[in-house]
Amino acid sequence: MMRSKLMNLVPRAVATTSRQMSTATKLTTVQVDDKTGIATLTMNRPPVNGLNLELLRDIHQSIEEIEGNKSRGLILTSSNPTIFSAGLDIFEMYKPDKERIRAFWTALQDVWLALYGSSVPTAAAINGHSPAGGCLLATSCEYRVMLPKYTIGLNETKLGIVAPKWFMSTFESVLPRRLAERALNQGRMFTTEEALAVGLVDEVANSKEEAIAKCAQFIGTFAKVNPLARALTKQQLRAEELKQLEDERVQDLEKFIFFVNQPAVQKGLGIYLESLKKKATK
Amino acid sequence: MMRSKLMNLVPRAVATTSRQMSTATKLTTVQVDDKTGIATLTMNRPPVNGLNLELLRDIHQSIEEIEGNKSRGLILTSSNPTIFSAGLDIFEMYKPDKERIRAFWTALQDVWLALYGSSVPTAAAINGHSPAGGCLLATSCEYRVMLPKYTIGLNETKLGIVAPKWFMSTFESVLPRRLAERALNQGRMFTTEEALAVGLVDEVANSKEEAIAKCAQFIGTFAKVNPLARALTKQQLRAEELKQLEDERVQDLEKFIFFVNQPAVQKGLGIYLESLKKKATK
Amino acid sequence: MMRSKLMNLVPRAVATTSRQMSTATKLTTVQVDDKTGIATLTMNRPPVNGLNLELLRDIHQSIEEIEGNKSRGLILTSSNPTIFSAGLDIFEMYKPDKERIRAFWTALQDVWLALYGSSVPTAAAINGHSPAGGCLLATSCEYRVMLPKYTIGLNETKLGIVAPKWFMSTFESVLPRRLAERALNQGRMFTTEEALAVGLVDEVANSKEEAIAKCAQFIGTFAKVNPLARALTKQQLRAEELKQLEDERVQDLEKFIFFVNQPAVQKGLGIYLESLKKKATK
Repeated sequence: MMRSKLMNLVPRAVATTSRQMSTATKLTTVQVDDKTGIATLTMNRPPVNGLNLELLRDIHQSIEEIEGNKSRGLILTSSNPTIFSAGLDIFEMYKPDKERIRAFWTALQDVWLALYGSSVPTAAAINGHSPAGGCLLATSCEYRVMLPKYTIGLNETKLGIVAPKWFMSTFESVLPRRLAERALNQGRMFTTEEALAVGLVDEVANSKEEAIAKCAQFIGTFAKVNPLARALTKQQLRAEELKQLEDERVQDLEKFIFFVNQPAVQKGLGIYLESLKKKATK
Repeated sequence: MMRSKLMNLVPRAVATTSRQMSTATKLTTVQVDDKTGIATLTMNRPPVNGLNLELLRDIHQSIEEIEGNKSRGLILTSSNPTIFSAGLDIFEMYKPDKERIRAFWTALQDVWLALYGSSVPTAAAINGHSPAGGCLLATSCEYRVMLPKYTIGLNETKLGIVAPKWFMSTFESVLPRRLAERALNQGRMFTTEEALAVGLVDEVANSKEEAIAKCAQFIGTFAKVNPLARALTKQQLRAEELKQLEDERVQDLEKFIFFVNQPAVQKGLGIYLESLKKKATK
Repeated sequence: MMRSKLMNLVPRAVATTSRQMSTATKLTTVQVDDKTGIATLTMNRPPVNGLNLELLRDIHQSIEEIEGNKSRGLILTSSNPTIFSAGLDIFEMYKPDKERIRAFWTALQDVWLALYGSSVPTAAAINGHSPAGGCLLATSCEYRVMLPKYTIGLNETKLGIVAPKWFMSTFESVLPRRLAERALNQGRMFTTEEALAVGLVDEVANSKEEAIAKCAQFIGTFAKVNPLARALTKQQLRAEELKQLEDERVQDLEKFIFFVNQPAVQKGLGIYLESLKKKATK
């Protein structure tokens, strides 16, 4: 329904792009609301939106299309009824292929640089659990609306790993300093209610539709704002963190590759995957 | 009344200076309370305390006099019954004179460096609306008391312009990080009540007199503090932001000059001035 | 009781060390709880836990032992019934010995670097007043539980001195920026209730035992966290402040030596010590 109207109202290039995106091979879809001009980017990689190379590349490409689209804003959400994103796909890190793991981490850097530095207003409609990489995506947006009874947080220490500096700086930009530190040290997952209380999310909604509507309402607050002045303002405010990763992309990649290949880390990931398998077969 | 007593109690040089400041050509007045030793700096440029070259120079000179005066503190306020300061005078930026606009921006830098880095306790009695440059002056002070039913904020994006980095860092030092970001992106004007709730102002007062009394009460909290140790402490805490502008004064000036002379910006300012003219003639 | 069980459960080296620490000459004691594996570091230098060279060296050594012990966490507290620590011992600064004052300041730097950068979870059971250096120790920990009716804060400006940059950055990491600035400028001492309200302490307990139990409960939140991943996470989050002092240790020392030897500072300290003596003889 939204799509059919869209054909008449948005530039042809956009509509074509939009149509392409629903091809079966794509792990994301983008829908532009013809009334509001806001694009909804939906992650759709069953079973849990695990961030593997292909999903990351599709997210990156979708963000770039939305930037090029002159969309009024970007709402990030999930097609899964209970999971926003389960975070980085552990199969990318366990016994990794030498070439592929580099492409994987580079794609993750690309996604963060594009989303955190996006020139359009961004909001996350968090319609399910959102640990680790899922939390990174959500906190990279300017606004967060979450459904009740889910959890969100950077729980890396619970898995025996250390979040990169840019995961941490994104998280620290949302919460008071020591509260962020404590949660990162604990690998704490916040319930929706706890997340709202500390400001990790901005609003709670009772359905995905309501969450998207509230995100759209937030993006609507920029209706009377000059888009270029807004984009330059946001980029100036986020310049320091963006520059830091841009300057250290190679070191950040090498650090990750070195870390992942440690025998203790490989062993830990193996045990974790084994436990998932057992859960699945129960 | 305050002036007559002052003559007996403060060093002659101060009193003389104080008298000079009420000459007709001066756009600010400074009154030192003989009981408390606190100086009140009043902006007085009808109709709206638009910050033009002359007003900025007078504010700067008044701050320097108060520093030299050994005043116990500085309270910044306005003689206008409904406007603290309407911010930068747009006539300085529209079809600007090449020499004058450089002097104008340099004077603004001087005012901020002097006020943000002032060695005496500073407080703003915000007795009217305080957008853009008005908000910059208020947030550069250590404490803010505001009258009800006015508004305050950095609304640059609504005018299609981008606040300089030091406007933003001053604003971000008062509010939580993401809340500051959101407000800057939105060009949001906070009502007095909203400003109090988020910490953009510290107290509300029902009259200008009460606002000044509350500012004086704040300054009184330093009564038993060593003034030199206090000044060094404050300067150490604000050193990073002060150093950043001091190091980049020239680039900051050139950036502003380049920006203001963009045809799109000139066109936007022209339209805005036209709308003000129409309003005035209604 | 705790000690006898300990012998069976922890490596011999640790137990031996632990026993050594109760020798009469040591100004700190360390007790490791055999159930929880948490070490309690007690400052014990009558009458007020003034931080002199010897106490600082003992604190530093105790922290290093706890690090080496594989303790599950560190709880810092005081043997004094009403004072956590009165801060730096003024006798170290008044008419100082040239060699000793350098060793004194270096020991203080060592303590902060070890405590702020500690790889184990740290918490302070603040069972008494905690001004200046006492507040520095408490805020260097990750968690603070305080008993009612005491006070805590960095009150240096009230004594006419300026806290070093790393005292301030530690304090600013706990409180919102402008609130920290104001308190530092004022030399403000917060009551337990005020400290809780602004987040300077995390919990209130009604006895030392309860405070230690609450600290242990906080440390217990890391039970399911990988200790190495936790340590690396914490160190990454605190790296900037730690690096700053490590890079500037010599300048920081010279600055302190220069400052302390100013005649005005010596005079102020003399007057202060005289007033303490008079109080004591009343």
